[in-house]
Amino acid sequence: MATLHLVPVPIAQDGADRPHAAVAVLPEATIAAVRSAGYFLAENARSARAFLKSIGHPQPIARLDIVEIGHESEAARFDEWLAPLREAPARAAVDAVLLSEAGCPCVADPGSALVARAHELGIAVVPWVGPCAIVLALMASGMNGQQFRFVGYLPQERGALRERLLALQREAERGETQIFIETPYRNARLLEAILEACRPQLKLCLAIDLTGPEQSVATRSIARWRAAAEATAQRLQRRPAVFLLCGGVPARAPRPPRQP
Amino acid sequence: MATLHLVPVPIAQDGADRPHAAVAVLPEATIAAVRSAGYFLAENARSARAFLKSIGHPQPIARLDIVEIGHESEAARFDEWLAPLREAPARAAVDAVLLSEAGCPCVADPGSALVARAHELGIAVVPWVGPCAIVLALMASGMNGQQFRFVGYLPQERGALRERLLALQREAERGETQIFIETPYRNARLLEAILEACRPQLKLCLAIDLTGPEQSVATRSIARWRAAAEATAQRLQRRPAVFLLCGGVPARAPRPPRQP
Repeated sequence: MATLHLVPVPIAQDGADRPHAAVAVLPEATIAAVRSAGYFLAENARSARAFLKSIGHPQPIARLDIVEIGHESEAARFDEWLAPLREAPARAAVDAVLLSEAGCPCVADPGSALVARAHELGIAVVPWVGPCAIVLALMASGMNGQQFRFVGYLPQERGALRERLLALQREAERGETQIFIETPYRNARLLEAILEACRPQLKLCLAIDLTGPEQSVATRSIARWRAAAEATAQRLQRRPAVFLLCGGVPARAPRPPRQP
Repeated sequence: MATLHLVPVPIAQDGADRPHAAVAVLPEATIAAVRSAGYFLAENARSARAFLKSIGHPQPIARLDIVEIGHESEAARFDEWLAPLREAPARAAVDAVLLSEAGCPCVADPGSALVARAHELGIAVVPWVGPCAIVLALMASGMNGQQFRFVGYLPQERGALRERLLALQREAERGETQIFIETPYRNARLLEAILEACRPQLKLCLAIDLTGPEQSVATRSIARWRAAAEATAQRLQRRPAVFLLCGGVPARAPRPPRQP
């Protein structure tokens, strides 16, 4: 049996002015795990090739075995994709690397059903350190990191969105940080809905373009965001962002003196 | 105004056989941010000094300004600690680095109230990439990474613990991954309580000693863990671990084609 490696990739685009951004956000050990592999299960084959080139994979990229598993992978093909990791009469097992288009595989990204199947088959699963927008945003928000919840994408329909925001506000006011995301071109619309639905005292954190050239993280009350709504909407528009809500009650320190 | 940098530190101990583990799990950009700073706000001054030495800080460690803010920082001292980041008549502002004893500051760790104060004062807050046990565990669990919740530590009292586990099981069965931790010496007791309280079909993931020499991540049904309860309790005992519960329903892919 071989190992399924879960490897995060950069979350910000490399620009002409930041050609080494990819390498800068990945630890040496993560890069080494990718460089020594020859079999890749990629959400998107094209972005996977660009990533493998950026970290200087020692083999010619065209010679690597890159399987595109897509955004909504077909469960029916999991065993076929994982077959090279299992010993067969004719050949030894090989390691595989699972790659998202950006960030951590399986976290706000596809891949978890494939990993679940790997566990069922007894394949070793090894996660590697790299950028996760949710954690970067939470760390920098100043909000409760002892109790938090990631809820993914909110409903798009106006009434349902408002209902959901009011439900999230209730949880946030109990002290649990509520984290969500939206596709960049809908960010300004989501901000507008938040500023309309939520109470003035509630805290909203906007973490924009994390690890990118326009990175900013700001936490303010809804009342203060309302006063700068138009400028904020413009900054948010078409930029990746993470949204966080918390009740404004300072978090208590965790119970015991040590852990993750 | 200067910047408050939030810097993760390694989560596994360096052993004689892995002297460079610290550097291997931190990206180049994160290490550079620490090397260029001279003012540190540390949960624990001693472990901060050991970390600064391990990444080869260019200045003599004894000459660095390291303030121990402790596990339960006193809010009354936040402004004093943040004062060097604000320009004063007599001197320019300097950057500060916030360090936990292990992992990401503010995420299942102290620091968020200090960061919240930095936001109020208009100080720029910048998070850096590094190891987060919660994300590593979630990524490798094969459980739903589109909806998840970190609940910290569970109650210690037997009856309250059982009640809490049943409540987490209800949420897990609705498809949201439930993540929690315990101090290592209580891990075996927590495992026992989980195996007693939860339904046989529920999935439990145990992520043990992440990034360390004894790392393992395994996801199985409660029924299967019960069959190996004693050996598992021994492996868990006194090792850092993350516990995850999920209902076993495979997660649907997230809605839009791209994000964190």
